[in-house]
Amino acid sequence: MPHSPMPTAIREFLTLPNPAVMATVRKDGQPVTVATWYMLVEASRTRPPSDSDGAELLLNLDAGRARLAHLRTEPRISLTVLAGDDWYSHVSVQGQVTRLVDDEGLADIDRISTHYTGHAYRVRDRPRVSAWCTVESWHGWGSLKTAD
Amino acid sequence: MPHSPMPTAIREFLTLPNPAVMATVRKDGQPVTVATWYMLVEASRTRPPSDSDGAELLLNLDAGRARLAHLRTEPRISLTVLAGDDWYSHVSVQGQVTRLVDDEGLADIDRISTHYTGHAYRVRDRPRVSAWCTVESWHGWGSLKTAD
Repeated sequence: MPHSPMPTAIREFLTLPNPAVMATVRKDGQPVTVATWYMLVEASRTRPPSDSDGAELLLNLDAGRARLAHLRTEPRISLTVLAGDDWYSHVSVQGQVTRLVDDEGLADIDRISTHYTGHAYRVRDRPRVSAWCTVESWHGWGSLKTAD
Repeated sequence: MPHSPMPTAIREFLTLPNPAVMATVRKDGQPVTVATWYMLVEASRTRPPSDSDGAELLLNLDAGRARLAHLRTEPRISLTVLAGDDWYSHVSVQGQVTRLVDDEGLADIDRISTHYTGHAYRVRDRPRVSAWCTVESWHGWGSLKTAD
């Protein structure tokens, strides 16, 4: 898989609010997948848009999720994002969680919810945690195909 | 996660040709996800439909895929299937590959392709391998919600 720079088509695709599935690995080695919202966040707005280095994935989990414990043991994840109109076109990203941060005031989930739905997150009575993940490699298929 | 029997709503959902993402684990422990076709196949047509025991997942891979090597080292997989009209509703299944079988004559991929597209698989010049997977646990969200 290529390392850098991320092709513009893949970067732009990853900024869209498309369906995504993330995988974590349990302590016993079992992979676990679940549908998820995510956002691709630029580390610095001052970088030129064609430079993918430093972009991070923002994921956000209910604080009670077993996945959080998995991530503390095994920080490596994989995320596959499907094109909404033709899921043969999809992008998979591998990375790892570098920071788990309490989502104070639910600011991060509101940002992600607004990205996907246009409104703040409806559930306000459960603590949540943000997982910031590096983007270490990626692969595209279909109209987003990268070299094998 | 529940073990058996699989609720009828989840079983019926898994028989539909919906978008799916599978996770395998690389030899170095990195999870890898990719969009995939799959089929839920009854082990025996004589079982009553409410009895989920014995149902298997059929996956089918190009014989050159790195994923095949991953599966020979680590047979455990996870599959998340998204509802086509509202992907908040989704089902995740954990299982493991019990048999990797050369897809002679591409019979299996034709069966899966017909399930998804209505026609046989178009690529005829590449060998393929079928991966038969047990269904060991599952979890549903949204309209397919199972107990936490």
